[in-house]
Amino acid sequence: MTIGVIGLGLIGGSIGQSLRSQRHRVIGHDPLPAHVEIARQRYCVDEIGSLEQFGECEVVFLAVPPSSVTSVADDLRPHVPTTTVVTDVASVKAQIVTWAETADWPTFVPGHPMAGHEKSGPAYSSDWMFRGAKWLITPTARTEANAVKLVSGLVTQMGAAPIVMDAREHDARVALMSHVPHILSAQLLLQAFRKAGSDVGGGSWRDWSRVAGVDPDLWTQICIENRAAITHELRSLSGELGALVTALEAEDAAAVRKLFQRAAEIKASMKPEPTGPDAMQRAAGSRAATGKGGRRR
Amino acid sequence: MTIGVIGLGLIGGSIGQSLRSQRHRVIGHDPLPAHVEIARQRYCVDEIGSLEQFGECEVVFLAVPPSSVTSVADDLRPHVPTTTVVTDVASVKAQIVTWAETADWPTFVPGHPMAGHEKSGPAYSSDWMFRGAKWLITPTARTEANAVKLVSGLVTQMGAAPIVMDAREHDARVALMSHVPHILSAQLLLQAFRKAGSDVGGGSWRDWSRVAGVDPDLWTQICIENRAAITHELRSLSGELGALVTALEAEDAAAVRKLFQRAAEIKASMKPEPTGPDAMQRAAGSRAATGKGGRRR
Repeated sequence: MTIGVIGLGLIGGSIGQSLRSQRHRVIGHDPLPAHVEIARQRYCVDEIGSLEQFGECEVVFLAVPPSSVTSVADDLRPHVPTTTVVTDVASVKAQIVTWAETADWPTFVPGHPMAGHEKSGPAYSSDWMFRGAKWLITPTARTEANAVKLVSGLVTQMGAAPIVMDAREHDARVALMSHVPHILSAQLLLQAFRKAGSDVGGGSWRDWSRVAGVDPDLWTQICIENRAAITHELRSLSGELGALVTALEAEDAAAVRKLFQRAAEIKASMKPEPTGPDAMQRAAGSRAATGKGGRRR
Repeated sequence: MTIGVIGLGLIGGSIGQSLRSQRHRVIGHDPLPAHVEIARQRYCVDEIGSLEQFGECEVVFLAVPPSSVTSVADDLRPHVPTTTVVTDVASVKAQIVTWAETADWPTFVPGHPMAGHEKSGPAYSSDWMFRGAKWLITPTARTEANAVKLVSGLVTQMGAAPIVMDAREHDARVALMSHVPHILSAQLLLQAFRKAGSDVGGGSWRDWSRVAGVDPDLWTQICIENRAAITHELRSLSGELGALVTALEAEDAAAVRKLFQRAAEIKASMKPEPTGPDAMQRAAGSRAATGKGGRRR
């Protein structure tokens, strides 16, 4: 299959590598010469093309910053036949779904791979980026079932699990499971840095502060776009933390224990994380790729 | 050297394995028969002994729950010569330092290894647990320099970096870099669980929710004991999150960007995490040991 990738950053580069390893032909495009050069060097693409050339593609991935998705899609649309399936990777979906419905584009498939890295750019891309990850797909009311099927098939080939869900539900859930943790990570790092003295963190601190180094522009866009869901979760969190402060001040061990007990119960009921050679290879590969002990986002 | 380990859980078992691999003789003790059996099977100790036998030890590690440290130390004291160095591993240090000063025990060295695991018990112990970790030591005003030196030497042999610091400073810093993240991890998991539907988390969610499964009794003790520092940090965090909610509601991208920008700058200025074969081996070993993709705390 001939597949287009517009935006050759970390995610676009990884999509290119993953699909090329499955023997697809990948045409790439990126306005940044540095991205183009690294993407070529790292075999993320078979060739680089202008938007005009994307008419050959059966599927085009828009791996551009969230705030550019609709404008890049509008630029692309005149150059591709109506049969070409176009899909994006933005972290916030409700506005894009509304736009796709208004634009009456039944072969546009809004998507969001739950994978990434605290380092950005095609220098950190890899063909295992999506292995074992969830790839959320939030079709509009008018999205063609065959278009969703085509994207799901490619997602599966990349090693990810496609999950179809409602866009608003998506935004609420990623606010809690991705956006709020990224905010807390940055905020805790700032608080830690204010304290003078040596770094005393252990493994949990490494895990927690890892994603604090994400791209500020990208994450500002994400937070502003998903602000309704994020502020809802932050308020809820602050309320719970306030209750915990009260319990701690009263030395109410039973109330404190309840938090950890319920969390431990939930954790015990959860499916174990994937393990075995593939997971180990992924962890080792990630460290080797970044040279900084990095792990996947 | 003959070394005693009282409490053969995850940390005590790992201390035993680490010191045995350095050719020390390790005498262990634990009131739980299950711990004793697993510790024997997994070569955490050379032999099991009653407290009377700990008189032979040059150093004794108290790897018992934080609330038991002083009572176990008091039980042990009549059985060891005044030259025996005794050290603990509790996560909160101010009260223990005060107790050691009052008890006039110049060979008692308060300590805290910044290592662990979300799984507890000697079944998860390993001789690499402390490699690359920090091991915080908070001497009292009366602790003998030679006693600190002896503990630091063993810590170094276990692959950890001893860091001597003030107990109150210690408690403030671990509140932020360990205790608050553990609380947030548990709290986020509870909030996520309240939402119905599929798990959409990516790698950052795995990192963030990993330690939510820690032992509820241990962590309740830790939080109650370090409540002053923890509530201070939680209040500070809530204040910052409140300001961020205000910025998001006003769509104030500059204010949001400032958070991520400053965090990225701090992150970029930090020393890279250890990498290379040792770090990779540790990651792979951790997964293999737990069988659940676990990583170090």
